[in-house]
Amino acid sequence: MAPGESTERGTDRDNTAERGTDRDDTAVRDAAGTPAPSRRALLGWGGAGLALGAAAAGGAAVALRGDGGGGDATGTAADSGAAVPFHGRHQAGIATPVQDRLHFAAFDVTTGDRAELVQLLKDWTRAAERMTAGHAVGDGAYGGLPEAPPDDTGEALGLKPSRLTLTVGFGPGLFTKDGEDRFGLARHRPAALPDLPRFPGDNLDPARGGGDLCVQACADDPQVAVHAIRNLARIGFGKVAVRWSQLGFGKTSSTTPGAQTPRNLFGFKDGTSNIAVTETDALDRYVWATAKDGSGSGSGTGGGEWMADGSYLVARRISMRIESWDRTSLQEQEDIFGRDKGEGAAVGKAHEHDKPNLKAMLPTAHVRLAHPDSHHGVRMLRRGYSFTDGTDGLGRLDAGLFFLAYQRDIRDAFIPVQRSLARSDALNEYIQHVGSAVFAIPPGVRDKDDWWGRTLLS
Amino acid sequence: MAPGESTERGTDRDNTAERGTDRDDTAVRDAAGTPAPSRRALLGWGGAGLALGAAAAGGAAVALRGDGGGGDATGTAADSGAAVPFHGRHQAGIATPVQDRLHFAAFDVTTGDRAELVQLLKDWTRAAERMTAGHAVGDGAYGGLPEAPPDDTGEALGLKPSRLTLTVGFGPGLFTKDGEDRFGLARHRPAALPDLPRFPGDNLDPARGGGDLCVQACADDPQVAVHAIRNLARIGFGKVAVRWSQLGFGKTSSTTPGAQTPRNLFGFKDGTSNIAVTETDALDRYVWATAKDGSGSGSGTGGGEWMADGSYLVARRISMRIESWDRTSLQEQEDIFGRDKGEGAAVGKAHEHDKPNLKAMLPTAHVRLAHPDSHHGVRMLRRGYSFTDGTDGLGRLDAGLFFLAYQRDIRDAFIPVQRSLARSDALNEYIQHVGSAVFAIPPGVRDKDDWWGRTLLS
Repeated sequence: MAPGESTERGTDRDNTAERGTDRDDTAVRDAAGTPAPSRRALLGWGGAGLALGAAAAGGAAVALRGDGGGGDATGTAADSGAAVPFHGRHQAGIATPVQDRLHFAAFDVTTGDRAELVQLLKDWTRAAERMTAGHAVGDGAYGGLPEAPPDDTGEALGLKPSRLTLTVGFGPGLFTKDGEDRFGLARHRPAALPDLPRFPGDNLDPARGGGDLCVQACADDPQVAVHAIRNLARIGFGKVAVRWSQLGFGKTSSTTPGAQTPRNLFGFKDGTSNIAVTETDALDRYVWATAKDGSGSGSGTGGGEWMADGSYLVARRISMRIESWDRTSLQEQEDIFGRDKGEGAAVGKAHEHDKPNLKAMLPTAHVRLAHPDSHHGVRMLRRGYSFTDGTDGLGRLDAGLFFLAYQRDIRDAFIPVQRSLARSDALNEYIQHVGSAVFAIPPGVRDKDDWWGRTLLS
Repeated sequence: MAPGESTERGTDRDNTAERGTDRDDTAVRDAAGTPAPSRRALLGWGGAGLALGAAAAGGAAVALRGDGGGGDATGTAADSGAAVPFHGRHQAGIATPVQDRLHFAAFDVTTGDRAELVQLLKDWTRAAERMTAGHAVGDGAYGGLPEAPPDDTGEALGLKPSRLTLTVGFGPGLFTKDGEDRFGLARHRPAALPDLPRFPGDNLDPARGGGDLCVQACADDPQVAVHAIRNLARIGFGKVAVRWSQLGFGKTSSTTPGAQTPRNLFGFKDGTSNIAVTETDALDRYVWATAKDGSGSGSGTGGGEWMADGSYLVARRISMRIESWDRTSLQEQEDIFGRDKGEGAAVGKAHEHDKPNLKAMLPTAHVRLAHPDSHHGVRMLRRGYSFTDGTDGLGRLDAGLFFLAYQRDIRDAFIPVQRSLARSDALNEYIQHVGSAVFAIPPGVRDKDDWWGRTLLS
């Protein structure tokens, strides 16, 4: 920066943008309709993401994801730089194709002021609209004046939208905390969001579980996901504090029909029978909550209308005893899973997608115990990621699966399945659940006047 | 797997391979010349990596990287699934284009037997030849019998080579440990591999530093990098134990001319004046050790011939005070770096690659203090990565830069530069060095009869 430039830049931040070598001088409107140079325009980056941003900017015609149940045209693996529409009936990041990388954060709400909480959720919504479209937070590249902290932290400047999705959830502590009804929300806690029972074998670290709010950031570029969580945390300074966070380096479940099934760190294909984004009926039956859901016994009695088109998330940090597993014979590994390692075919079958014969597997086989046919057909949409967080101090890799599953009612899905697994799964010798959290995932943000949590808090 | 198949598979593991939908029935030889179905052939995956594997298999004509100083034809960002040749005068992973992701591991050698150490390095070399070419470890997909643990852990089956490079280094503890000359190597410790002095501000965690051996695994797919470290650790069971490891989710330095300069987590472009893989003269002058190097004062007096064509690596885990930085004004951020945030231009300049006028920067500016012109022109090849490892227990993201720099002599490069930075860098208010290690990087593995460390240990 030339010394002589500083005054000008103080009065007209857009001068900075002129430095781009290939700047599109057309003002690009962001998803919120605010005219602003995009972070890519600033740096002379063009391409699909920018074109999409410009298309979405044509007045009020903000791209909507329709009912959000089907796969959208963008967001395929073939176009991993593109933007996934933020607005829709359901939040993106559930029934949209799984991206390669994850940064997940759980927050404690530190303010007790309901109006501050509402403002935070509105601020987060506006920031999420911009970031998922590939823009920086705020107006311009950084926003504000040189004398002020930038509105955006900058490390995603020049990067593509990378299919970023941001998905917000509400933990039990938002409804009541330490017996206190801070925000007048206690009566709205859904019965479908129970506290989880203690399962046999659980070794839960409170510092890796719980949380009043969560944000799941998924993207094909991890820097884009990390940037999003960091900027939301920054916007929430003084109102929320990060309680725990988890980086996932590789997806373990695909929701895209025909895509190669990813492998978990035990080397097995994971998520073969996962709900695909095209299975609209299954999504309606097993994933999306309706206005009629939410009654009955449980930790809460609310839910119902405010959760219509939402879902429920269970997050579990599952540590894998990698070194022990790696000294187990191939035969035993395959017996434990109930599938063969190479192809992923169930016992007695030739191909991965052949319907399993559960009775041909050992009674303790993981696939047999977890299969919908063992649970009255109930299914979950899994969106887990592998993690590696250094070593455990004993020369072993601290690695495993960060399990994420979306469902219509936790009482009907995760709890019975995990009861069965915790009791009998042969895999338990090699895994340990060390973190746990549950969240109610509110419906999608419909348009630029809507905000995360409006149906609960307005 | 059909029950009836089990006997056959026990006697002829290749039957498994028949399940592939698109199997190339030509036996593919791996880089080590052993006939074996590749992991991609097994799963019906073809493409560039396989073709390269087949080409490399034509008898003794294993692809060599020439002198390794120039950019090789493979390994460009445009072809991120391809294989980077493993054999060469220099190890790959230094002057080859920087990949997107990192898994770095430091090991303690737990055996005191020199022959076991030599065998480990030979086993690692053979495994690295296979993995960098996109094959599984061992013969076949898993190798061995169903009654035995698989030779490969399997989670990279079906994935492309992803430009995987594996780079091995020898820490001070390999030469002497607790005053003991375990392997008869004490006299070979290079003078260019000193113990680092304690720098002002260092807050080093011994659990995140040191190590007798290191492996730097870089790849465009993190699952491929994690798989490689995990399999080397598994092969080393009983001889080495992982001391610490670090995942890097995003590169912060490019070594490819004309590529977009990545941004660090402070939002600034990092590595603008890094040594590019095409700068053969600079590599020879500042990165590659020669047979004449290694004498003089320091912690060692060896080096010399065994280190010819090798290099020296300094690894530092640098924690960033993200939240404090994000509340700092844009002007102050730019003053601290000495570059503007958007373009990355030095103070008083218009473009990122304009030659900086150091005197126009504050005396405490990071770029001014670190610039080669402030250090008699000495340069390092930086290959650092951003990391995020959850939270620090105080609601702050545990994030930063895992700094990796290759140099011809640590006494002439890292130490004087870091002395200057530790004393005066304005950035010190926002960073802390929390992990540290140094390694001698031996020369490359020349061919399939060569092995990592031969020049030192044979």
